[in-house]
Amino acid sequence: MNEPRPDHILQVGLGFWASKTLLSAVEMELFTELAKHPENLETLQGRLGLHPRSARDFFDALVALKFLERRDGQYYNTPSTDLFLDKRKPSYIGGLLEMANSRLYPFWSQLTTALRTGLPQNEIKNGTPNPFTAIYAEPARLREFLKAMTGISRGANLAIARGFPWSKYRTAVDVGTAQGDLITQVALANPHIEGTGFDLPEVGPIFEEHVEANRLSGRVKFSPGSFVDQPLPKADVVMMGHILHDWNLETKRMLVRKAYEALPDGGAYIVYESIIDDDRSTNAFGLLMSLNMLIETADGFDYTGADCAGWMTEAGFRETRVEHLIGPDSMVIGIK
Amino acid sequence: MNEPRPDHILQVGLGFWASKTLLSAVEMELFTELAKHPENLETLQGRLGLHPRSARDFFDALVALKFLERRDGQYYNTPSTDLFLDKRKPSYIGGLLEMANSRLYPFWSQLTTALRTGLPQNEIKNGTPNPFTAIYAEPARLREFLKAMTGISRGANLAIARGFPWSKYRTAVDVGTAQGDLITQVALANPHIEGTGFDLPEVGPIFEEHVEANRLSGRVKFSPGSFVDQPLPKADVVMMGHILHDWNLETKRMLVRKAYEALPDGGAYIVYESIIDDDRSTNAFGLLMSLNMLIETADGFDYTGADCAGWMTEAGFRETRVEHLIGPDSMVIGIK
Repeated sequence: MNEPRPDHILQVGLGFWASKTLLSAVEMELFTELAKHPENLETLQGRLGLHPRSARDFFDALVALKFLERRDGQYYNTPSTDLFLDKRKPSYIGGLLEMANSRLYPFWSQLTTALRTGLPQNEIKNGTPNPFTAIYAEPARLREFLKAMTGISRGANLAIARGFPWSKYRTAVDVGTAQGDLITQVALANPHIEGTGFDLPEVGPIFEEHVEANRLSGRVKFSPGSFVDQPLPKADVVMMGHILHDWNLETKRMLVRKAYEALPDGGAYIVYESIIDDDRSTNAFGLLMSLNMLIETADGFDYTGADCAGWMTEAGFRETRVEHLIGPDSMVIGIK
Repeated sequence: MNEPRPDHILQVGLGFWASKTLLSAVEMELFTELAKHPENLETLQGRLGLHPRSARDFFDALVALKFLERRDGQYYNTPSTDLFLDKRKPSYIGGLLEMANSRLYPFWSQLTTALRTGLPQNEIKNGTPNPFTAIYAEPARLREFLKAMTGISRGANLAIARGFPWSKYRTAVDVGTAQGDLITQVALANPHIEGTGFDLPEVGPIFEEHVEANRLSGRVKFSPGSFVDQPLPKADVVMMGHILHDWNLETKRMLVRKAYEALPDGGAYIVYESIIDDDRSTNAFGLLMSLNMLIETADGFDYTGADCAGWMTEAGFRETRVEHLIGPDSMVIGIK
């Protein structure tokens, strides 16, 4: 009848094989290469500098995993790897996977230690007090990190830009804006909106480059500052994407209060990331992201929609709701 | 319409999160603990020695991944984790995942180097000539490895025991038998079969323990020897599961010839593992297993059914066929 089978256990338990194969392909810019034109085995192997022993297995594994296609001996990108993993396209989301490959995959090998000690397992272990300090200290790593943030949030950014009732509001600030993709997508989809991206001064040049590439320099500005140490810029809508989960409960509550203070009556606060379902039993990605906060931060954690709505109510927001965006992402909206 | 979406890319690219979470749960014997009785958060956290920071996220992530259930604040195994991941049950397949956790996950972090150099990235890097030498040198690691092999092959072993026309044959030898699970399952399902397990002498005690646990000591014997250096024991059916892929082409062909020599006219040779589909475009697991051979061996690789049937025909087999077993596994059968 329904005898238990080990398939799901083995598939997930060895799932790091497929994961690392894709990460190595991104690292070696395979999809950027094939976006130029399809190539046969020998040419592609040569372009990537691969040893002949396993090149064919590597490419064919990516075919079987549906990241490449092979027709008449030529390898092609799929429509989605061509759009999202070609480094020369603005739709590139590989920054996240580059970071996953170079940092997170090895750090996660220490998950058991992290669970037993409650301590992060990233650069912090070597004495740097905060992963952002290390990242912000090197412009090349900062750019990688910020593009990674765009990669993980593009789909949700589009959903917010299209799905929120923007016609009721005129100004918006994106707190911890990184490359500025959320405020960019909001401004592109809503020509009446004037936007501000708020983040540390080092982020400015990378933000402005992204805004200019989208021809929004007239309506979208950068405002330098620290959301931990300073008040937030005032606006009709305050947004925080992938911010709250980095911090402990006390700082989360402080940030929610700051958002309240930056809004006019009737203003809206949008918090979004991979919000955990209230029963904590279905959004696996949100729960795993919280384990990633264990690996990456001193005391950050992810949370449910009910958790966040509770902090908003405590801060004075008169109305809250949770709306699903895309995949594992939801937004929690508070109205002042 | 069918706009490309990044979901599959992100899911696989960060798939190592779910993978490592399950591997850490197996490492800490979470499922063995819950097989005794369900437990609440505090008790389970204490039993596993977890820090309070992320224990709940860890268990709830396993709920969302469908490896645990949570009802009224108590965590339970699922039927399949209870059967396959409780260390005290003979159906335990976690040995494979223990090995994946302690060895393969970190070795695979060097996949890009492996692809660029063609060189393995396991203990061999430290000067040991062959991974099996290192494994066979330590009884505890040998036992872990052999149980791992049982874990990965149990489903296919049952399919061979039930699906092959055993009534035509009287004796069978399993070459590279490890714990002996294949010949054990064949003998359990076919009471007329007399079986032999052939492997290095160090394997004997672990094999005999498994056979005795299944009350087959009267019909299933261990025969010590090296399939590389010696002829194979003669039998009506010669089986090789997860053997050929460890070796280079020359040794593969030599082993196929040795099987031919060990069989009578009409005898059958069964080769099984995650045989790659002839088009090399659908069996992702088989192709990834071949990359695992890159990580683990000097020159091993996986192969298609057509490849193997070709080596059989060269060696003199008059008839060959490929039959699917279960999941990624197929068997190639040669009739002398």
